[in-house]
Amino acid sequence: MAISPFDAALAEHASDIERMLDRLLPHPEGPEGRIAEAMRYAALEGGKRFRPFLVVQSARLFGVNAESALRAAVAAECVHVYSLIHDDLPCMDDDDLRHGRPTVHKAFDEATAMLAGDALLTLAFEIVADPDTHERARVRIELVRRLAAAAGAHGMVGGQMIDLASERKPLDIGGITRLQLLKTGALISFSCEAGAVLGRASAEAEQALHAYAHDLGLAYQIADDLLDAEGDSGLMGKRAGKDAAAGKATFVSILGTDRARAQARMLAEQAVQHLDLFDERADLLRQAAHFVITRRN
Amino acid sequence: MAISPFDAALAEHASDIERMLDRLLPHPEGPEGRIAEAMRYAALEGGKRFRPFLVVQSARLFGVNAESALRAAVAAECVHVYSLIHDDLPCMDDDDLRHGRPTVHKAFDEATAMLAGDALLTLAFEIVADPDTHERARVRIELVRRLAAAAGAHGMVGGQMIDLASERKPLDIGGITRLQLLKTGALISFSCEAGAVLGRASAEAEQALHAYAHDLGLAYQIADDLLDAEGDSGLMGKRAGKDAAAGKATFVSILGTDRARAQARMLAEQAVQHLDLFDERADLLRQAAHFVITRRN
Repeated sequence: MAISPFDAALAEHASDIERMLDRLLPHPEGPEGRIAEAMRYAALEGGKRFRPFLVVQSARLFGVNAESALRAAVAAECVHVYSLIHDDLPCMDDDDLRHGRPTVHKAFDEATAMLAGDALLTLAFEIVADPDTHERARVRIELVRRLAAAAGAHGMVGGQMIDLASERKPLDIGGITRLQLLKTGALISFSCEAGAVLGRASAEAEQALHAYAHDLGLAYQIADDLLDAEGDSGLMGKRAGKDAAAGKATFVSILGTDRARAQARMLAEQAVQHLDLFDERADLLRQAAHFVITRRN
Repeated sequence: MAISPFDAALAEHASDIERMLDRLLPHPEGPEGRIAEAMRYAALEGGKRFRPFLVVQSARLFGVNAESALRAAVAAECVHVYSLIHDDLPCMDDDDLRHGRPTVHKAFDEATAMLAGDALLTLAFEIVADPDTHERARVRIELVRRLAAAAGAHGMVGGQMIDLASERKPLDIGGITRLQLLKTGALISFSCEAGAVLGRASAEAEQALHAYAHDLGLAYQIADDLLDAEGDSGLMGKRAGKDAAAGKATFVSILGTDRARAQARMLAEQAVQHLDLFDERADLLRQAAHFVITRRN
């Protein structure tokens, strides 16, 4: 399959992100070196780096300098990677494979995996708080505030809690939408808004990015459910069909494949419309909406 | 046993802290309510609230207002409670009892316990970043930076990693000192310095508090090892003798009881001396140094 211009752009962003991750992650040293090893193992290989891509592209709209954007992008990725490590643990999803490699608790052990997740979450805040991320304290503290809100009990962790509870009591379509808005949507929203915060954008521009993120995040998740239902574990680099196996309701189990696909397409188009006030600098964000519903892994 | 004036002061601080915790912790609501329940279960009962006490008393030296001090104090306590929840999990210390009650994973389940810890760590940053904690963004971001450094791979989590590794390879006295400076010392130092940051203290005053915290933290830990070696599980509200059972070297196993006790006393006296530049407003901090080496649980 030929690589699309968008895939090429995403791959280019991914290498920038990985270079910055490599710079900002701790290096294994001393008797606690194993924690840095596990953080690097989890963070440095694989992944589309989609959230950091959103940070960098939203920052680009407002002429934010590359260093600031990449640092905020890496913070978002650290939170994402932490959530995957904890999600993969035996007490949660109990997954052995992630990005085609053994999960952190398989490659190391459970305690190290949990601590590596803890340390990555903490590192995200340390990175954002550092003066190198932005010269103005007011901007940095606003990023901290939003990142904490996106990650915490009313954001990602809350979504994971609902997800766990849904194994006992299947959700309806409203429940699934809310679950996903918290579990994956909150960090995607943070990623899209981070550029606006860094660039001190107008309330209107920020609101547009917020609306874009909302629809993009839901489209992304519906596409994820479609991949999970139809997917190929080898291609995905993780276990497919696990939601069905856990008896969880998903967008696909409730809407059916065709309606789910139509819904994702509708959301992606809506996401693009929210970007109407931006010029061609938003073109990659526009393409990203198409990407999330057509990706194969 | 009669209650000392210091114990009375500590108890009074503890109720202030608990009121603020109650205000700042999320309330159980919606399908994710279980996460708030677990956070409240872990954070709202028991504990000496020693770290928040240090925040409030260090803040008092510089005339910081009560609301600011209590909010930073609660943030430190959230990080402490998160570390206990994760530490108690089966993949770490596997403890069933904490403050005389079932640990979070016993009262709820492992997944909920891990998520509650994650959410408490995140909440700490959300609290500090909130404008209610201090009017100046510069002060808040400095607290975030220090809290993240104290909690992360080069602080508390690093210490926990060394602690785990020490089961396989017993540490010498230098190794144990470094382990404890990271595992418990970093957050105690944050707590003592937070007041200086909030009160925009002189570098000299801040340095004095840093030195005080260093010695206080070590004295606290040696006393902890003594209690663990000699302690009564009922009185401590947690399992005693567990370091010895795990084959871990401690200050006591290496120095012996008498030398460990003398060392703790020496460190406590040294801690008090570092406070010489402060007036009688530092008296409770002075008494705290005595408290840490004479406490019974």
